[in-house]
Amino acid sequence: MIKVGIVGGTGYTGVELLRILAKHPQVSLQVITSRSEAGMPVADMYPNLRGHVDLAFSNPDVASLTQCDLVFFATPNGVAMQQVPELLDAGVKVVDLAADFRLQDPAQWQQWYGMEHACEAVLAEAVYGLPEMNREAIAKARLVANPGCYPTAVQLGFLPLLEAGLVDNRYLVADCKSGVSGAGRGAKVASLLCETSESFRAYGVPGHRHLPEIRQGLAKMSGRPVGLTFVPHLVPMIRGIHATLYARLKDPTDQLQSLFEQRYANEPFVDVLPAGSHPETRSVRGANVCRIAVHRPQNDDTVVVLSVIDNLVKGAAGQAVQNMNIMCGFAENLGLDSVALMP
Amino acid sequence: MIKVGIVGGTGYTGVELLRILAKHPQVSLQVITSRSEAGMPVADMYPNLRGHVDLAFSNPDVASLTQCDLVFFATPNGVAMQQVPELLDAGVKVVDLAADFRLQDPAQWQQWYGMEHACEAVLAEAVYGLPEMNREAIAKARLVANPGCYPTAVQLGFLPLLEAGLVDNRYLVADCKSGVSGAGRGAKVASLLCETSESFRAYGVPGHRHLPEIRQGLAKMSGRPVGLTFVPHLVPMIRGIHATLYARLKDPTDQLQSLFEQRYANEPFVDVLPAGSHPETRSVRGANVCRIAVHRPQNDDTVVVLSVIDNLVKGAAGQAVQNMNIMCGFAENLGLDSVALMP
Amino acid sequence: MIKVGIVGGTGYTGVELLRILAKHPQVSLQVITSRSEAGMPVADMYPNLRGHVDLAFSNPDVASLTQCDLVFFATPNGVAMQQVPELLDAGVKVVDLAADFRLQDPAQWQQWYGMEHACEAVLAEAVYGLPEMNREAIAKARLVANPGCYPTAVQLGFLPLLEAGLVDNRYLVADCKSGVSGAGRGAKVASLLCETSESFRAYGVPGHRHLPEIRQGLAKMSGRPVGLTFVPHLVPMIRGIHATLYARLKDPTDQLQSLFEQRYANEPFVDVLPAGSHPETRSVRGANVCRIAVHRPQNDDTVVVLSVIDNLVKGAAGQAVQNMNIMCGFAENLGLDSVALMP
Amino acid sequence: MIKVGIVGGTGYTGVELLRILAKHPQVSLQVITSRSEAGMPVADMYPNLRGHVDLAFSNPDVASLTQCDLVFFATPNGVAMQQVPELLDAGVKVVDLAADFRLQDPAQWQQWYGMEHACEAVLAEAVYGLPEMNREAIAKARLVANPGCYPTAVQLGFLPLLEAGLVDNRYLVADCKSGVSGAGRGAKVASLLCETSESFRAYGVPGHRHLPEIRQGLAKMSGRPVGLTFVPHLVPMIRGIHATLYARLKDPTDQLQSLFEQRYANEPFVDVLPAGSHPETRSVRGANVCRIAVHRPQNDDTVVVLSVIDNLVKGAAGQAVQNMNIMCGFAENLGLDSVALMP
Repeated sequence: MIKVGIVGGTGYTGVELLRILAKHPQVSLQVITSRSEAGMPVADMYPNLRGHVDLAFSNPDVASLTQCDLVFFATPNGVAMQQVPELLDAGVKVVDLAADFRLQDPAQWQQWYGMEHACEAVLAEAVYGLPEMNREAIAKARLVANPGCYPTAVQLGFLPLLEAGLVDNRYLVADCKSGVSGAGRGAKVASLLCETSESFRAYGVPGHRHLPEIRQGLAKMSGRPVGLTFVPHLVPMIRGIHATLYARLKDPTDQLQSLFEQRYANEPFVDVLPAGSHPETRSVRGANVCRIAVHRPQNDDTVVVLSVIDNLVKGAAGQAVQNMNIMCGFAENLGLDSVALMP
Repeated sequence: MIKVGIVGGTGYTGVELLRILAKHPQVSLQVITSRSEAGMPVADMYPNLRGHVDLAFSNPDVASLTQCDLVFFATPNGVAMQQVPELLDAGVKVVDLAADFRLQDPAQWQQWYGMEHACEAVLAEAVYGLPEMNREAIAKARLVANPGCYPTAVQLGFLPLLEAGLVDNRYLVADCKSGVSGAGRGAKVASLLCETSESFRAYGVPGHRHLPEIRQGLAKMSGRPVGLTFVPHLVPMIRGIHATLYARLKDPTDQLQSLFEQRYANEPFVDVLPAGSHPETRSVRGANVCRIAVHRPQNDDTVVVLSVIDNLVKGAAGQAVQNMNIMCGFAENLGLDSVALMP
Repeated sequence: MIKVGIVGGTGYTGVELLRILAKHPQVSLQVITSRSEAGMPVADMYPNLRGHVDLAFSNPDVASLTQCDLVFFATPNGVAMQQVPELLDAGVKVVDLAADFRLQDPAQWQQWYGMEHACEAVLAEAVYGLPEMNREAIAKARLVANPGCYPTAVQLGFLPLLEAGLVDNRYLVADCKSGVSGAGRGAKVASLLCETSESFRAYGVPGHRHLPEIRQGLAKMSGRPVGLTFVPHLVPMIRGIHATLYARLKDPTDQLQSLFEQRYANEPFVDVLPAGSHPETRSVRGANVCRIAVHRPQNDDTVVVLSVIDNLVKGAAGQAVQNMNIMCGFAENLGLDSVALMP
Repeated sequence: MIKVGIVGGTGYTGVELLRILAKHPQVSLQVITSRSEAGMPVADMYPNLRGHVDLAFSNPDVASLTQCDLVFFATPNGVAMQQVPELLDAGVKVVDLAADFRLQDPAQWQQWYGMEHACEAVLAEAVYGLPEMNREAIAKARLVANPGCYPTAVQLGFLPLLEAGLVDNRYLVADCKSGVSGAGRGAKVASLLCETSESFRAYGVPGHRHLPEIRQGLAKMSGRPVGLTFVPHLVPMIRGIHATLYARLKDPTDQLQSLFEQRYANEPFVDVLPAGSHPETRSVRGANVCRIAVHRPQNDDTVVVLSVIDNLVKGAAGQAVQNMNIMCGFAENLGLDSVALMP
C-alpha cells in the first residue's frame, strides 16, 4: 500500500481520481486538499462517493503532502509548478494532471499559458506520461506530466502512421469533439446546459492550448516537425472525446489495419477495432481505454483514423493512475479494469 | 465459483448483468442465449465488453442451462414461466428479471399481462426478491422474482412509513420518473432520441403494469390493502428512476428522519441522506444503491419521500446479483461495490 | 404601432421577448437595457436575432423608457418595484415578468423574498396577469404582474376543478417538473450541463417561492384557503414544464373531460386534449399554449391533471405579450400564433 | 394562393413542411398523403399542429395531387421518380425532398442507391435546388431536386473558395456532424435515445450517399472534378448540422473574410459571421439560414470553414419552401422569416 494525496480535488478530474483510487487495492488515500472547500466531507460535494470515501477536503499543507508516497495535482494550470519542487525534494513522486510540465520548451509554455515557468530545472526532468510512447521513462520518473485529453486521443491515433513514416506529415488534420466535462466544473455561462445542450459548435479555431502539446508529441513520433490543423468542438454530452484524424498517404497501402493492430498488440489500454468499425465514445465511458479504427475511404489516398477516449479517464484521471501504477511498479491495470457503462 | 447462465441477454438488462458478472469473483459465465443473435460475439453488440466477456450468444438450449448452478432470465414477460419448472427440476436456481413471478395472484397476472399463467404451482413458491423485505426467504429460495424498477424505488420509499403505520394508507401517491432505458432496447418510435429528448411526459396514467406489483408490496408492509395513485413519467435521460412519494401523516411527527435512518441502518444498499437533502439520480448511476430523503414540507401533515435508483442496477441487474449473492451464501455486496459514475 | 421597451434583457426571458416582439406587427422595439452589457448589440449575445433585431443594449435610463407606451421588466426580483412607480406616473404601461407584484400581501412578499416591498400602493393596483382568470381586469390595468412559470401550469390545471368545487381542496398535490432554463442564464454550478444532464432531482421541497403565489391563486379560484404540497423537479432539458396534479374528488364523476373542455372552450391558448391523452412538453416548445389532459385512474376517486407549457413562453415571455395585447386592445393572439417546434 | 400537396408526410421532413406551410400566406394546403396512416388527423401524430392544421392523412391518389399547383415529395428514395412524370404532365410543379433527382448521372444513382432510375428523361430536366447556385434555373423549373442536408452545409461552405479558385481542390475534407433527426422517424435501434444520447460517433466512413452529391456540386463550382474526403458523425441532439471544412490555400491570403462577405452579400439565407466567430447550430434551430465563419488558423495555409444549418429547415423543408417561392414568383423569404429558437 502506498500513501496518496490529491491537491485540488473539487473538480471533475478530482472526483474521478477519487472514484478510481477508492477501489485501488494498493492505495491508501491520505489527503485531498481544497482551499475553498476545506472542512467539507468529499462525499457532500460528490454523493456518489458516500460510503466509499470518508475524507474531508483539507487546506493545502505541505507537511501533510510530504508524508505521501505520491501526490496527484488536479489544480488549475500554474499551481503545480509552484509546489512540485518541494515535494520532489521530500522524496514524493508527483503526477501533474494540469499542463505545467507538458511542454518541454519553457518559451512555448509562456506563449500559450501567459506566465513564466516557475521551475525550468524540474521541467527538464519531467516525463510526458503517455505510456504507449514513454513507458520506460515513466517507470523511472519522479515527475510525470499527465497528457491533456485531446492530445491523448490524437497522439494515439496518429502514432502508428507517423512512426512508420507512411503519411505526409506537413498536412495533418485533427478534427476533435469533446463532451462538456472537458471545460471543468467552473461556473461559466458557456458551460450551462441551456448554452450547450441541443447544439454543436467549434471553439478555439485560431489557436488552442493543446495544439503545441500535440505538435510536440507528433514531432517526436515522426522525428521532425509536423504541420497540424487542430479544431476542437463541443458535443452536447458529459464525457467523451472523439478525434477524427486525416492524413495523406505517401503511397497507397492495404496494410493499415495490420499496422495498427501490431503497434498496439501489447498495449493493455488501446483497443484497435476490426476493419470497418466506427468507435462510439460511450463504449469507453468510465473506462481507461482508447478505441481506434482506421479507414481508407473509397480506397483513396487519404487515411482517416477514428479515436475515442473518456476525457476524464484515459484523458485524465485513469491515465494518471496508469502512470502511478508504472511509477510504483504495480501491475499497469491495477484498479483500472472496470467495464464501460453502456448504455 | 458458480456456473451462471443468462437467458435472453441482448437487452439493456442483459448487458448490465454481463457488466456486473464479468467482474464478480465467484461467478463463471457459462452461457448467454439469444435466439435472434445466436453466434454473434456478445462484445460485437456491446463493445464496452470487449476484453471482458468472450462469450457469443447461443441458441436457447435446456441442456446448456441445466449445467449451470443459477440462471438469470432477462427475457420478455411470459417466457420464463414456460422454462423455469424444467430448470428447477434439474436443481438450477433461478432469478427472473421479468414479471412472470412477481404477482402472487395468477388472476392479477392474467388481467395485467393478458395471458394465463403457465405454472401456478411454481408461482406459489417464488419469493419476491426485495432483500430489504424478504432477505431470509430469498436465502432459502430456488426461484426469485426480481422486482420491477418502479416497484423497487416506490416500495423502499414507503416501507418505513407503512411498517410504522404512520400514514393514511388509503391515499398514497407515487409520482415516478424514469429514464428511457426502462423502455428497453426495442426498435420503437416512442423511444427514439428525437421523440424523447428535450421533452417530458407522463404515460400509462389509466393503468400501468407496475401498479398491482406495487400495491401488493405496500399491502404486505401495512398489513392491509392500500389505495395508491401511480403515475409514471419519461425523463429525457438514459438511466435513473426518481420516485416522489406523498402520504398524509395520521399524526404530525418530528421523527421521520430517525425512523428512516433506523429502518435502513443495516441495509448495505439503502442510503438515507441527511435531513433536507434532494437525491439526484446521477448519484446512483451504475451503482446498486437506493438513496432516500424524507421531508415534511412547511411542517404540514403531508410527508414527501424522494427515492432514487439506477433502474438497470438496483432496479434490475444489480438487485438480481444481490439476490444471487443471498441465494448462494456469498457476501451480499460481492461484485456490487462499484462507485456511481458522476459526472 | 406602440413603442415598447425592455428592462434587463440579457436573460432567457429577455431573448424570448425579443424573439416574439421582433415579429409582432404592432410593436416597435425602442430600447432594451442592460447595465452589464451596455453597448453590445443584442444579436452578438443572441445570434439567432441576427438580421431580426438591430438594437444594442443600453444603460438603464428613465428618459428612454418614459418615451415608450409599454415597458416589460425582465429583471431580477426586487428591481421593478423600485422603478415602476415613475413609469406609471409618466403614463407608461408595465408588464413585470419578475415576482415583485405577484403576491398581494406585502408581508408574504417580505417573508419569501427577503426584502421589504418598495411600493405597496402600486402593488395594490397590480393585476395578476393570468388572462384565463383576469382578462377583464388586465384589459384595464396599468400594471400587470406576469405569473411565474410553475404557477401558470398549476393554476390552469386546477382551475376547472376548483371553480366547480369538485375536489377536497385541503389536500392538493402539485408535482412539477421544469427544464433548466427556468433557473436562468446565471453562471451557477448547479445549472451546468455536467451537473444537470443525465440526471433528475427534486429541489426546494421544504419551500419554494412559487408556493405562496400558487396558493394565492388557487384560493381565489375556490373561494377559500387551500392546502397544497408543491414539489418542483429539474428535468435534463432546456424548455418545458410538466405539472402533474392530484386531488381527491368529493364525489366520483364521469364529467371531468367535458368540464375541462367547456371551461376552456373559448380560451385561445389553453388546449384540452382528448380523453386518455398524455401531453408532451415538446408539443408546446416555443408556442404560447398550455395543453391539458385530465384522468381518473382506475376510476378511483383521485383525479390526475397533466398540464404542460413552455416555461419561457406561456410561462413567461409569451404570456407577457398576451397580456400586452389585452392591455393595448390588440387581438389577443397577435404575434403569438407560431407553431411549436417538433421534433 | 396556390394549392399545395405533400406526398409522404409522416416523417420529420413532412411535419416541418407542415409547420412552415401552415403559416405561409400564399399557400393553401390541400392534401397530405400517407399510405400507412390514411385517415389519421395530422395533428394526432404531431400535436404541435393542433389548431394549425386540420387535414388528415389521405391515401396516395393521383387525382387529388393533380389538382394542386405544386407538390412536395417527402418520401423514401425511389418513390418520387415513379410518380413525378404523371404530375408534370398534368401541369403540377414538383419539389422532391428525396434523392431521386439530385444526381445528374443515372449510373451514379444506380451505384449509390441500388436501383435503376425510373425516368431518366425527367431527370435530365430536374434543377438542383440550391438557390445560391441555381436561382435562375429554379425560377424556370418544373421539377426541383431539393439538396440533401449535408450537401447544403458543405456546398455553401466551400462555394466562395472554389468559385474563386483559391484552394487545392484535390484534397478537400468535409468533417460533418448531424443531429439524430437526420436519420428520420423510422423505428431503428440505432436511433434510440439510449443508443445515441451521451455518445458521439462517426458513421459511413467507407462511403455515404451524400458523397457523390457533394462532389457533383463542388465540381460544378470549381469547373473540374474535386477530391473530397467526407466523414459524417452523429451528434446527441435532435436538430442541426455543423460542417467543418478543410482546404489548402494555393497562396496565403488575408482576403478570406471579405471574399465570403461579398459572395453572400445579397443572399437572404446565408449569414457570414464576423471574423473569428464560431457558429452554433442552435443559432439556426427552426430557421432557414446557413451561418458561416471562415478561419485561417495560425495564419497557416489551411483554411477552415465552419458552416451550420438546421438539417430539417435549410437542409430540407425550409429550402424546399424557398425553392417553391422562387418557382412561383413569390418573395423568396415568404413564410421563412421566423427567428431561431434559442435557448
